[in-house]
Amino acid sequence: QAQVLYDFSAEPGNNELTVKEGETVTITNQSIGGGWIEAQNSRGEVGLVPEDYIEVPSFPGAGTTAPTPSFGNVAPPDLSIFDAYAPPAAPAQNQASNGNDPWSVWNADPSGGTNNNWASNPEGTQTGKSAADPWGSISQGHPQAYQGPGAEDDEWDDEWDDMKSTGGYAESESGESGAMQRGGAHASSMKISLNKFPGFSKSGPELYLLCKQLPKGKEKLPIYLGEVGPVWSYPESQLDCVVADPKKGSKMYGLKSYIEYQITPNTTNRPVNHRYKHFDWLYERLLDKFGSAIPIPSLPDKQVTGRFEEEFIKMRMERLQGWMTRMCRHPVVSGSEVFQIFLTYKDEKDWKTGKRKAEKDETVGVMIFSTIEPEAPDLDPVEVEQKCEQFSKFTKAMDDGVKEILTVGQEHWKRCTGPLPKEYQRIGKAFQNLSSVFTSSGYQGESTLTDAMTAAGKTYEEIAQMVAEQPKKDLHFLMETNNEYKGLLGCFPDTIGVHKAAIDKVKEADKLVATSKITPQDKGTMAKRVSTMSYTLQAEMNHFHSNRIYDYNRVMQLYLEEQVKFYETIAEKLRQAHSQFTTM
Amino acid sequence: QAQVLYDFSAEPGNNELTVKEGETVTITNQSIGGGWIEAQNSRGEVGLVPEDYIEVPSFPGAGTTAPTPSFGNVAPPDLSIFDAYAPPAAPAQNQASNGNDPWSVWNADPSGGTNNNWASNPEGTQTGKSAADPWGSISQGHPQAYQGPGAEDDEWDDEWDDMKSTGGYAESESGESGAMQRGGAHASSMKISLNKFPGFSKSGPELYLLCKQLPKGKEKLPIYLGEVGPVWSYPESQLDCVVADPKKGSKMYGLKSYIEYQITPNTTNRPVNHRYKHFDWLYERLLDKFGSAIPIPSLPDKQVTGRFEEEFIKMRMERLQGWMTRMCRHPVVSGSEVFQIFLTYKDEKDWKTGKRKAEKDETVGVMIFSTIEPEAPDLDPVEVEQKCEQFSKFTKAMDDGVKEILTVGQEHWKRCTGPLPKEYQRIGKAFQNLSSVFTSSGYQGESTLTDAMTAAGKTYEEIAQMVAEQPKKDLHFLMETNNEYKGLLGCFPDTIGVHKAAIDKVKEADKLVATSKITPQDKGTMAKRVSTMSYTLQAEMNHFHSNRIYDYNRVMQLYLEEQVKFYETIAEKLRQAHSQFTTM
Repeated sequence: QAQVLYDFSAEPGNNELTVKEGETVTITNQSIGGGWIEAQNSRGEVGLVPEDYIEVPSFPGAGTTAPTPSFGNVAPPDLSIFDAYAPPAAPAQNQASNGNDPWSVWNADPSGGTNNNWASNPEGTQTGKSAADPWGSISQGHPQAYQGPGAEDDEWDDEWDDMKSTGGYAESESGESGAMQRGGAHASSMKISLNKFPGFSKSGPELYLLCKQLPKGKEKLPIYLGEVGPVWSYPESQLDCVVADPKKGSKMYGLKSYIEYQITPNTTNRPVNHRYKHFDWLYERLLDKFGSAIPIPSLPDKQVTGRFEEEFIKMRMERLQGWMTRMCRHPVVSGSEVFQIFLTYKDEKDWKTGKRKAEKDETVGVMIFSTIEPEAPDLDPVEVEQKCEQFSKFTKAMDDGVKEILTVGQEHWKRCTGPLPKEYQRIGKAFQNLSSVFTSSGYQGESTLTDAMTAAGKTYEEIAQMVAEQPKKDLHFLMETNNEYKGLLGCFPDTIGVHKAAIDKVKEADKLVATSKITPQDKGTMAKRVSTMSYTLQAEMNHFHSNRIYDYNRVMQLYLEEQVKFYETIAEKLRQAHSQFTTM
Repeated sequence: QAQVLYDFSAEPGNNELTVKEGETVTITNQSIGGGWIEAQNSRGEVGLVPEDYIEVPSFPGAGTTAPTPSFGNVAPPDLSIFDAYAPPAAPAQNQASNGNDPWSVWNADPSGGTNNNWASNPEGTQTGKSAADPWGSISQGHPQAYQGPGAEDDEWDDEWDDMKSTGGYAESESGESGAMQRGGAHASSMKISLNKFPGFSKSGPELYLLCKQLPKGKEKLPIYLGEVGPVWSYPESQLDCVVADPKKGSKMYGLKSYIEYQITPNTTNRPVNHRYKHFDWLYERLLDKFGSAIPIPSLPDKQVTGRFEEEFIKMRMERLQGWMTRMCRHPVVSGSEVFQIFLTYKDEKDWKTGKRKAEKDETVGVMIFSTIEPEAPDLDPVEVEQKCEQFSKFTKAMDDGVKEILTVGQEHWKRCTGPLPKEYQRIGKAFQNLSSVFTSSGYQGESTLTDAMTAAGKTYEEIAQMVAEQPKKDLHFLMETNNEYKGLLGCFPDTIGVHKAAIDKVKEADKLVATSKITPQDKGTMAKRVSTMSYTLQAEMNHFHSNRIYDYNRVMQLYLEEQVKFYETIAEKLRQAHSQFTTM
């Protein structure tokens, strides 16, 4: 006997059971795993219900306190010196780790300082877009029954594989939900950092700035001075991969089913299989490891709107491909161990080992900066701040520009698939109807006109269909690209937030030296490390710009190309219709 | 001192005075004429008010009983024999001639039997179109202060010249108001027939069917058997004319102003000037004389929506041209004396004489059939009825088809001039905005992309403008033509109504012979005359069909031609925009 905590409506055909809050059910199988248990309601119906939705006596709970990890040779600095300092995201974490409230993970605002970041932006006029605030949105999906890094593979929530995209670009979906996912994933990842450094927010740069002695890992991320300024070191040949061939698999004796995708990197040309949850795992690792220095775009959304439709799978695969391509293009990400193991693991054992290794990686959060080595003179803090302001301005402005295109494109999509073709259809019908009236005239020499008018009518019906199908051929890609950039831009507040926090710390440094809370050396170290962070940010911006220029050139060309074809085809069809009328 | 009978709101800038029902005004000048008087209100404001709107002691009134005209050698038949018969439109007439109720002229349904005609149509399913019933509509304009045929030219209502079209094709305007005008004009014309044959409806065919002896006029209208069946005799060279060069004139010391159009027939090549009211006079003469046998389309509507806008004058001229062209194309109309005098009068005196003569013409209403001479064997009444049914079906069906096109076209027009261009504009702006964000990146090698994106954005703004202007270039003519046909088809119920009434009379004939109310000869005469009427209707239908085929061929060609140009231009503009992006 157990109590239902929240309403849950079953997805048809998936062995789930609809339950209402307060309802009492009998647990028939608690060892199903994947965050699900089998229960029977008063009417004798049996089905799966998310664990979190039911008050089970022996419920493991998500809020388990992780063991305080060893810090390797990193000595935790004394932070009492920063009286001003309070870990901004900690409260969110406590919520996030409260397994009994599945929504808190999403409602929580894990980026306290980050919104201020947008706000403190000189350009940051309060637009009416607050609804579009990445952090404001709320999940419409099931709770993530994510068990934390220690959990066994099979206990993972399979439901992640079974979700559907709504396909459109409405604020609720696409960008926003993408951002929401970002927020969610962020929360999870922060839960991990929390476990690693109790009471710390990943975005608190002190750990790196004041670290007495930086870890001596083998990882080295050099930054060079290129034509455009600081740049990452790019590999000879660019990594790329193909996501294809989605296959439906099932487990637990067919109780739960999932989609497996085939990923083939251009390096090995050997395909590996991964499910959505594996992509999500990779995303969390990358976010955790690089998130402070490199904006890691969120995965395609996980919203639940149905299951196993062709279209959804196609759409998700397309978006996973886009995400992977972007990750492959990034010299730091694509070169990382975790990314490589994901693409090239040899067998199940190899993969498991790689997973565990990646999850144990301690060079995460701000510590990533300790591996970065700019081959350039230290930057003056003033210059660092200017650069930072500039990037902050630009990303905010582009975020607005991209959102504008998405809004306009969404409207246009609606019109092209809704009223417009209907209208051309009606025009076509009207011509054909009049034509058939004419046929009934009984007057001689009618046929030439009536045939021509019928043809003209049919032509407008064809045009109607063309109009309705066109967005899939051109607008779709314009939207996908901008949607991707919206997600990407949604990450910058975090990255820039860490940066700004660091700058503020350095500003405090003088006072701290004066009150001899830190030594002048410490201050020098801080300035040097902020300089490193700035080179990182600049290298990242330059990477972003070159990709942006490439992407927008390509997508605009594709869009206009298809538009030209579209209008030419219509013109040709109409020319043929015209030719059927007798010239006088 | 005089009482105001109805509210009247002055058109600005036209020396008019706004008055309210019940208001008392002082008449300052009663001899202004043109159906207007000058009055002063309590606030001392002086201006013109329609005569009919004010209770003037010595008001001439429109309901003057006309002198019973001499019938030449036509003996009025004894109609008491048709017990069933009652003049359907007479009550409307009494109303129409009541000068104190300006609306009755329009509200009156002068075509009692005519609506039944649509209804009695086997195909005549009661459509929801009753709102579109030509006779149902009500004038939104000023009352017609028409003084009857005897009135002096200068006393005519100048306001007819000063009215504006709304330009669109909404039911309220165009077709319907066209039909309304038709109804209105019809009423006026019937007022005249009434004066000529007291107690008679123009559409009562008895006068012709039972006329003891047909008038021996010099007018002869032969009908031949052509390839397509009965046809009018067509002239060697087709008459045509150009309506152009509208000039604003004024009279009464600039108190009232009007537009004068120049009409140049291809026969004389000598231009004559006419004002709208002259066209209207011609229309009434033609309707009065040929209306029973030939559908005479109404003139462009007279709705008042403003004054002296360029566009209105252009639009009215265009429609007057269309109307004149149609009249010129009709062998009977174009050959008639009244039409000729209108086109070719030499001087004012010549014109006045011609007008008087035309107004005295007695071969009007059904008597027109007395001038028609089919060179073909008499038709069997059964065949006559079949033909009539067929035409009735066809015209009704085409009326529906044409209305459908007008409705759809109207919607399309709205979309093309409203939301659609706005959307393309927004797309264009969105591209340009993003482009200017990119320009601010400070990254090298940005310009190629930003220039191209700005160009693409501008292209979509150009497309927006093209979309908004296109309807004027193609849809406009498609709408005008269908609008013209809608008006024309609105006349058929009348013409066919006369025909059906005649057929019914012939059916009654046997009974009448049996009860020896008429002689077998009379019956023979009736059958013969109905046969003549049938030949007339067939000739007219064949004329209609040949014109229809020509008109629709032409307008569809023009429409599609412009549409092709439109889409080709867009494709070309987009191709240029595309070429500006760097190919990779």
